[in-house]
Amino acid sequence: MNLLSYLQNFKNTSQQLSKVYSVRQSMLTTKIRKESPKDELSINARLLERGNFISKLMAGVYSYLPLGKRVLAKIENIIRDEMNHLNAQEVLLPALQPRENWDQTGRWNEIDVLFKLKGIGNRDFALGPTHEEIITPLCGQLIHSYKDLPLSFYQIQTKFRNETRAKSGLLRGREFRMKDLYSFHATSEDLDGYYDNVLQSYFKIFKRCGLEEVTYLTLASGGTFSKYSHEFQTITESGEDIIYLCKKCNLGINKEIISEQREMCPKCHNQKLSQEKAIEVGNIFKLMSRFSNAFKMSYHDATGKENNIFMGCYGIGSSRLIGAIVETFHDRYGIIWPYQVSPFHIHLISLCQKSEEWAQVESIFEKLQNASLEILYDDRIDVSAGIRFGESDLIGIPLKLIVSPKTLAQNSIELKHRKTGETQVVRINDLLNFIESCYGIG
Amino acid sequence: MNLLSYLQNFKNTSQQLSKVYSVRQSMLTTKIRKESPKDELSINARLLERGNFISKLMAGVYSYLPLGKRVLAKIENIIRDEMNHLNAQEVLLPALQPRENWDQTGRWNEIDVLFKLKGIGNRDFALGPTHEEIITPLCGQLIHSYKDLPLSFYQIQTKFRNETRAKSGLLRGREFRMKDLYSFHATSEDLDGYYDNVLQSYFKIFKRCGLEEVTYLTLASGGTFSKYSHEFQTITESGEDIIYLCKKCNLGINKEIISEQREMCPKCHNQKLSQEKAIEVGNIFKLMSRFSNAFKMSYHDATGKENNIFMGCYGIGSSRLIGAIVETFHDRYGIIWPYQVSPFHIHLISLCQKSEEWAQVESIFEKLQNASLEILYDDRIDVSAGIRFGESDLIGIPLKLIVSPKTLAQNSIELKHRKTGETQVVRINDLLNFIESCYGIG
Repeated sequence: MNLLSYLQNFKNTSQQLSKVYSVRQSMLTTKIRKESPKDELSINARLLERGNFISKLMAGVYSYLPLGKRVLAKIENIIRDEMNHLNAQEVLLPALQPRENWDQTGRWNEIDVLFKLKGIGNRDFALGPTHEEIITPLCGQLIHSYKDLPLSFYQIQTKFRNETRAKSGLLRGREFRMKDLYSFHATSEDLDGYYDNVLQSYFKIFKRCGLEEVTYLTLASGGTFSKYSHEFQTITESGEDIIYLCKKCNLGINKEIISEQREMCPKCHNQKLSQEKAIEVGNIFKLMSRFSNAFKMSYHDATGKENNIFMGCYGIGSSRLIGAIVETFHDRYGIIWPYQVSPFHIHLISLCQKSEEWAQVESIFEKLQNASLEILYDDRIDVSAGIRFGESDLIGIPLKLIVSPKTLAQNSIELKHRKTGETQVVRINDLLNFIESCYGIG
Repeated sequence: MNLLSYLQNFKNTSQQLSKVYSVRQSMLTTKIRKESPKDELSINARLLERGNFISKLMAGVYSYLPLGKRVLAKIENIIRDEMNHLNAQEVLLPALQPRENWDQTGRWNEIDVLFKLKGIGNRDFALGPTHEEIITPLCGQLIHSYKDLPLSFYQIQTKFRNETRAKSGLLRGREFRMKDLYSFHATSEDLDGYYDNVLQSYFKIFKRCGLEEVTYLTLASGGTFSKYSHEFQTITESGEDIIYLCKKCNLGINKEIISEQREMCPKCHNQKLSQEKAIEVGNIFKLMSRFSNAFKMSYHDATGKENNIFMGCYGIGSSRLIGAIVETFHDRYGIIWPYQVSPFHIHLISLCQKSEEWAQVESIFEKLQNASLEILYDDRIDVSAGIRFGESDLIGIPLKLIVSPKTLAQNSIELKHRKTGETQVVRINDLLNFIESCYGIG
């Protein structure tokens, strides 16, 4: 065997296979619901259900249909990318968790939203609402010496909370998607440094999700260990939290701690704070040795002495982010996705009738696909143009390419911006040349 | 706004972000367990736990550590890719399922492995072991007319079965990963055609997972609707099923139906069948109208007449596949991953000591990374070469690149094949030139 040529095998076998793909709308069941679901009050649930992004199974539990699954995948890949940049490693942890682990931290009876069930042999389980009770003893098996630290693992998966009042669509669910990162450190100083890195990483994530201008780092109660913890709060009318904003520091202060501060920014002492409704999209927390001690976890330093391990945990609700984005970006016609998390890049809409016109649209579609652009191609011939434009606005893909017999006769195509409604007619050759210069065409 | 230049925004925002990345072993906690876990009997569990791919939480419930998560992602991306080629759309369905849905099909009391729990208001839920009870009414909302058919959705997610005896590592779990595809058709003939397409797709998937030579299409009991259903069975000593193999037809026959056949191939009537132990890695099944009728689902044809809808379901156990692969590909030293599903492409092992030597290894590492190869880079200096080679064999990456001061002095590097042990010394320039010609270097 020639081992050098063996290297060829690895082509197209990388972990995150980049199979960019487009979809013909005639193949995708996107039959839009004309009316908002009657049992949904929040904007995100109404628009996402009408547009067939999600479907409600029961309060707080939704199925993700193809459009919704694509948005979720984009958001979770942005988060995954930033976690990898932090040198954190991805893991997948069980949802079924033995009661013994929860007894060990005293939280079996403490967390009132814990789903409890019985398995084989009448044994008690919890359905994981969070994973400190699993990751801590797991890392206890891996960490023995100072050489094994620091260590950080993250998971992006489904979690469960038995909320009494699940409401507001994807903002508060009983079954929801979440990223949690857990880090383990030899000293509290090392934890402090990593915590600051994660904080910067979170700013990048919310920026990449298009939420930069409405998401604020917010001081909240620090619990037992520190004066403050940090939340990331997105300003939205349907938010359940009240925060006070200091525009000078670009800082939020959660209402739960503001009374102590007499409505004053704890950083610059500015007293002109604005009160806003907001939804918590992320939080980061120094757990110190609360959990590592509960599981009798320790490490040996260079001298052989046994020491406490310091932990941090860092959450982002990825399904909640979908809800927050829709609450932020919509108009009376529907959703307006930020281009980074849109289910498709381009909505290609054909109004053609003759077969030679269709052949040209198919050729454009093929060239866009070859450039690895993600296209939703509305190739339906039995639905009126009016309905299709209405559906396009509801689905909210940021850029439309509209091909009509009229523009096609001039070898042109119309570009339309979903957000502003601006249109621009360009020659098809100019469009394809621009895309080739930008993306290459395979 | 220039809408043409707006198109630039979409760069690097595609759904499946291709962030290929490599890992330094000093950052990855891969401390190998010297001994097999005492409570595990199966080869896959012993090797996967010793190599820190997985960690057992309780019988049938495992955490996936970074190496295991990478293998799982590769397998699931192969499956995803083939599902997309079938024009199926990905969805994500709830694990929490209301009892009412299971009552409607009569399966609440019928399926003995159903995890049952109570939620808010003492309401009964099942933890989804399969999703017919969810996808059927969901598609009932989407399908009204013949124009909405055919429709096919797939999901890749965690499922739950309260197995009395969970055993054999990843081969039979209480919490496990699975792909299920569900298809809906206007006629049984249309279902037949799609079923055949899925069958071909399954052959491709098992081939891409390296299991082609040990996985057989197998006839099994067809239940109520047809004479046979089809399973895909992987031959392995630890399998729980018994199948009979017809080498002429390359066909398996499940023992459950062989008695009727008097140990004869139902296709070619060959009576020389070999008996094998096997594990079921996939199954495909024509459900006909069993579930669509239970949920009162129907469609209107072109004449306005109401008709039955025909369903198919098609499963693959993605976590079970990891177990089947390890049972198939290992030797006394450890796992031998097929290159398509290996957690990394290349295990780069540095035996260098001087800093100028290390600089050269770092440069090689960087160039391999730039070529988008996935490298596990063993950069540890405090672990002996013997231990590191032993760990490398256990982890089982198919190709090793070994850099020692001796080969480096000759501007060369050693390639070693995990499976055969073959080695080849090549000049570093030749290696890098070959990789550039094959992958390009960024």
